[in-house]
Amino acid sequence: MKIAIQGEPGAFSHEAALRMVPRCTIAPCARSAEVFDRVVRGSVGGAVIPIENTLAGSVAEHFDLLLSRDVFIQAEFPLRIVHNLIAAPGVRFASLRRVYSHPVALDQCRDFFRRYPRIESVPFYDTAGSVKHVIEKNLQDSAGVAGRQAAAEYGGKILKAGIEDDKQNFTRFFLIRKRRQARTGANKTSLAFSVKNIPGALFKALSVFALRDISLSKIESRPVRGRPWEYVFYVDILRGDDEPARNALRHLGEVADLVKVLGVYPAA
Amino acid sequence: MKIAIQGEPGAFSHEAALRMVPRCTIAPCARSAEVFDRVVRGSVGGAVIPIENTLAGSVAEHFDLLLSRDVFIQAEFPLRIVHNLIAAPGVRFASLRRVYSHPVALDQCRDFFRRYPRIESVPFYDTAGSVKHVIEKNLQDSAGVAGRQAAAEYGGKILKAGIEDDKQNFTRFFLIRKRRQARTGANKTSLAFSVKNIPGALFKALSVFALRDISLSKIESRPVRGRPWEYVFYVDILRGDDEPARNALRHLGEVADLVKVLGVYPAA
Repeated sequence: MKIAIQGEPGAFSHEAALRMVPRCTIAPCARSAEVFDRVVRGSVGGAVIPIENTLAGSVAEHFDLLLSRDVFIQAEFPLRIVHNLIAAPGVRFASLRRVYSHPVALDQCRDFFRRYPRIESVPFYDTAGSVKHVIEKNLQDSAGVAGRQAAAEYGGKILKAGIEDDKQNFTRFFLIRKRRQARTGANKTSLAFSVKNIPGALFKALSVFALRDISLSKIESRPVRGRPWEYVFYVDILRGDDEPARNALRHLGEVADLVKVLGVYPAA
Repeated sequence: MKIAIQGEPGAFSHEAALRMVPRCTIAPCARSAEVFDRVVRGSVGGAVIPIENTLAGSVAEHFDLLLSRDVFIQAEFPLRIVHNLIAAPGVRFASLRRVYSHPVALDQCRDFFRRYPRIESVPFYDTAGSVKHVIEKNLQDSAGVAGRQAAAEYGGKILKAGIEDDKQNFTRFFLIRKRRQARTGANKTSLAFSVKNIPGALFKALSVFALRDISLSKIESRPVRGRPWEYVFYVDILRGDDEPARNALRHLGEVADLVKVLGVYPAA
């Protein structure tokens, strides 16, 4: 199956796609909107997108796109983010003077840069892109920081594996497809809703779950695009498409202005 | 007063700082943790930090730092984000072939790049930094995209003002200081709390506000650093330090594991 991702081949989304859809081929896209559009148009079988990272938080743009585009979440996958120092073949660690990567990745490897003060960290627009850069230019004193898939993709050599400070660094990915169909064993539902901006409105909305002993595993408010300081709520509930969940959603429809089920899938 | 900001002089935080604390001087810091540390140490009078953008969402790292460091929010300010095309003096618009800026800023000016296909957008690590770059190197065919303060700071010329697609683009900034003191007219409270991971726990926590007709203007769950998929909730309530708010917070203390008041300040 062909899977769209945002970013360069070798990105963490590429790694996640291979774990979620073994033997898939990748359609890399420059922009997230393009990833969603390709799913909607049917020019790919699906897409794998990062939705939140334990350290950096939510990918806000992807929540907005899940709400506005006609796609359905079919699976979730938590990928351990391992940062590796990757250089052109033949480059020795002792020759390194500069290390390129996305600022977020560099920031997650602060202990490494403290230990080797001779090495300068240089911000770059993308993790896998930094590896592509040092290898294409065959830089002898530079490396990139990225996931191991980037080394495989561009023929780089991993000089040091796992240089991230925090080993509890996970990114949660979604597999999205066009078809609104829940897999067997689906026991988790992601949904979006908005309520009127009046006291107690959110409380009332959440009561539809509490009254039925349905657990929430996530809640997040996001500003509505173009209407500053109005909010949509994104909620994950630990139920699939069963009787209590259907009742709760019907009940939510009575108290909320807008309700959209973003996906029903097996909890990872 | 000396105000710490994250980023280069001329950044949007610099603009916000001048609006929130007129005639302040700026202490630019490379990292957000350094900004907070300087406030805690008392080497600056305060700091101005972005907390959420209407298009891009929350600045997750700043929520984490508000929770972990001993600082207090004293004011909020919504800054309209206006992107300007800024070049070295003497450069004409017709000569431009490349425009540098942070990927998020470039993405917010898509209509501009569609209208001028001869101009290539090039990702750079920082908005104000891109202006600094084109001016220091005196590039004749390149410009940066940043707030107007960047032009003032580096002696650049604004070739086009307001090239952003969406005029409803606001970033909310906080002024944080060391002293836990609410200003006169403070009618909004930001707080963080965590609850046990059991059904209905969040509902119970929110009932302390709903039962007292206290409005929430924001709620967000954030993963707890180092404990994947456990969450802290960040909530803004539309009350200052009055009797119902104090009662609600005392009540919240009974049902939540952790409660921290992050600040009490006048709603913007």
